[in-house]
Amino acid sequence: MSHHHPDVDVIVVGAGMAGLVCAERLRRRGHDVLLVEARDQVGGRTAGIEIDGETLDLGGQFIGPGQDRIYALAAELGVAVFPTHTAGANVMETETGRLRRFRGTVPKLGPLTLLDVARAQARLDRLARTVDAEAPWRGPNAAALDGRTLQSWIDRTVKTRGGRSFLVLACRAIWACEPSELSLLHALFYVKAAGSLAAVTDVEGGAQQDRLDGGAYGVATRLAERLGDSIRLNAPVQRIEQHDAGVVVTVEDGTAWGARHVVVAVPPPLAARIAFHPPLPAGRQLPMGSVIKYVVGYPAPFWRQAGLSGSALSLRAPIAVTVDSSPRSGRRGVLIAFVNGAPARDLATRSPEDRRRILLDALGRLFGPRAATPVSFVERNWNEEAFARGAYSAVFPPGAWTRLGAAWRAPAGRIHWAGAETSPRWYGYIDGAVRSGEAAADRLS
Amino acid sequence: MSHHHPDVDVIVVGAGMAGLVCAERLRRRGHDVLLVEARDQVGGRTAGIEIDGETLDLGGQFIGPGQDRIYALAAELGVAVFPTHTAGANVMETETGRLRRFRGTVPKLGPLTLLDVARAQARLDRLARTVDAEAPWRGPNAAALDGRTLQSWIDRTVKTRGGRSFLVLACRAIWACEPSELSLLHALFYVKAAGSLAAVTDVEGGAQQDRLDGGAYGVATRLAERLGDSIRLNAPVQRIEQHDAGVVVTVEDGTAWGARHVVVAVPPPLAARIAFHPPLPAGRQLPMGSVIKYVVGYPAPFWRQAGLSGSALSLRAPIAVTVDSSPRSGRRGVLIAFVNGAPARDLATRSPEDRRRILLDALGRLFGPRAATPVSFVERNWNEEAFARGAYSAVFPPGAWTRLGAAWRAPAGRIHWAGAETSPRWYGYIDGAVRSGEAAADRLS
Repeated sequence: MSHHHPDVDVIVVGAGMAGLVCAERLRRRGHDVLLVEARDQVGGRTAGIEIDGETLDLGGQFIGPGQDRIYALAAELGVAVFPTHTAGANVMETETGRLRRFRGTVPKLGPLTLLDVARAQARLDRLARTVDAEAPWRGPNAAALDGRTLQSWIDRTVKTRGGRSFLVLACRAIWACEPSELSLLHALFYVKAAGSLAAVTDVEGGAQQDRLDGGAYGVATRLAERLGDSIRLNAPVQRIEQHDAGVVVTVEDGTAWGARHVVVAVPPPLAARIAFHPPLPAGRQLPMGSVIKYVVGYPAPFWRQAGLSGSALSLRAPIAVTVDSSPRSGRRGVLIAFVNGAPARDLATRSPEDRRRILLDALGRLFGPRAATPVSFVERNWNEEAFARGAYSAVFPPGAWTRLGAAWRAPAGRIHWAGAETSPRWYGYIDGAVRSGEAAADRLS
Repeated sequence: MSHHHPDVDVIVVGAGMAGLVCAERLRRRGHDVLLVEARDQVGGRTAGIEIDGETLDLGGQFIGPGQDRIYALAAELGVAVFPTHTAGANVMETETGRLRRFRGTVPKLGPLTLLDVARAQARLDRLARTVDAEAPWRGPNAAALDGRTLQSWIDRTVKTRGGRSFLVLACRAIWACEPSELSLLHALFYVKAAGSLAAVTDVEGGAQQDRLDGGAYGVATRLAERLGDSIRLNAPVQRIEQHDAGVVVTVEDGTAWGARHVVVAVPPPLAARIAFHPPLPAGRQLPMGSVIKYVVGYPAPFWRQAGLSGSALSLRAPIAVTVDSSPRSGRRGVLIAFVNGAPARDLATRSPEDRRRILLDALGRLFGPRAATPVSFVERNWNEEAFARGAYSAVFPPGAWTRLGAAWRAPAGRIHWAGAETSPRWYGYIDGAVRSGEAAADRLS
């Protein structure tokens, strides 16, 4: 094996958005490419399901201003973009179950709480501007920021009980984890990589502004069509050996391919499961966020007639946030609901029947009894997906950027890295995945 | 496979101290047991090397008062216990390279710094007493303590620069990680599980008081002798399936065994790599501490003649701590040196020649030029051991006890847990491993 003649120029591991973009760009530039995927389908953390002739997104789906590369890719592939529905009032459910209508991103929390939250948001934005998104582990303050959790920052910064509850909810909605699990530096880097906190949280003008016609998964399948039989499905990579002249990539059934370079474009916990020889200079093990996404269909988007947008925030677990995700055609109504962080882990311990009942109860409280009697109900627990291990993205705990940062994006010899977690812009987003795939291809061509 | 007839009563995965103790106890009670080990030898995080007729410990080696179960096991196996050498002065190296002699655990740091450190130690001890070692995730204060890093606690509690430096060094010496990587709750639980901070840090009266004649690894090999051909080496477990009537354990080469129960007694990151079907209710992925242990031999323990104990602490990386580890016979001198946490990760990026030179320079500064010309020099980087992934033990980052705690030690159906990380007493120590193995065997017999 050590004198193995390269089978191809580049092997790309993982046919999520990053791997697909990388392989397709290399192929277009005349390189001989093999794209190796563990599952029986492409798309990574995007996924689609067809219900009554409409493709609904079970995974990543939103795009927004500043995410130029996914807009460009959609345009190139002929995938139309359309706005997320926002007309109408948003709903906020308090811990005691009271409903309050509001517009925009921050609900009516009472004047003191509102002031407290606004001050915290401004501070977080200001702190985020001090972070170098290209090298978050550098900078005079980086080690101190990486030594703290978002929780300890909230405890010190936010004075009102209502403000603290709201920030815990915001953390679950944004990072799909508890504030205690997150390095403050990572939270700030994430905001910086998106541009601002508003860019992260907003629908109009923010990262939830637009959707892709036919679903984000449709972008992945169109890229896969272009790659044709350069893709090997059902091929989980177990081992990557590096020699003077190339690499050998071995999959579960023992098949091995040689190449000059390999691009590893899988989520960090899966990269960490590959046996690298010689060993990597630094580990890649990180926890992922915890997300259960519910896609619930109705004959029509009935909430719109009631003056509601379909967007809701809830301080009462398990649902953190909902959004109107009806198909562009308007032929049906679809609500998506996210159960994230600790509530996702708690809910996963219940039976499927209990989970359905709990979810429909919660939707009924937010949008009235019609919400509790859907015509379709699909659940996707991303933590149980063996080849995702969670969503939306990896969560850097305290100390991890300091420890892993310098080696995080740097090639280890002939091993290169891609994936939404390796992008200094739009970390964790579809756009970040696209950028990382493009960057890896550019380095190799 | 689903109607597979059990091959044995219990399969134990991992022939470290916990797995060996568990399997041996079950065997003695008449159970049919299979002990499956990934490596070509037993011992887990204990390991021995023979140099000039003496077995030296490359892994865990110290035991101390309160660790009743390892003392009992040694007695039962006829392994003698002898005290760690302590006579003479300890040495402290400052950041600028000045040497100060001292006695006991805390060096001469200047009166203000000393007061600061003493106050921090007392506070940590006091806080640790509030933690329930049987269920660290419970208790009124647990969530808040688990939301913080040890670093943020040091930043708030310790006022002097010298005090902060010393506590970072202490963290590296005790937990083999940076204070930013560690949940404050985990640090407190660890202290509580050992009894007190003094029990953790002290040689005389503490966890470093005694050694095992012939090395800790000798305890493992004697247990292995008793188990005979119930042990399968070179058998990394890849998959554990659970059915109504039993489990099926499959190893890398495809061999599968059935059993009524399985005890998984491997470090958390390795348990996390096993494919469990159905999936576990909660993950087991945790980072390990970072340890490179050096075992350096001399014709004689020359430092003793100079009035030195061989124990040193250094605020100048890379060495954190050294101890006289000469064989009981006194025929040779042996110093062990630990490079832990971030300095271990930095040092690992250097060439073997550089690492040797850096280490011998550092030992020369601490113990004089004779220390720089040893007759033997052995390095063990525990982070590069594929079936250990680090040492001394797993490090719970913020939020991890809150998230994983309830499922951490609870059996998942027919899957039981053992290993130093599952013991509520002496977490991470050899004694904790022994206790966890005994407890798992007791539950199954």
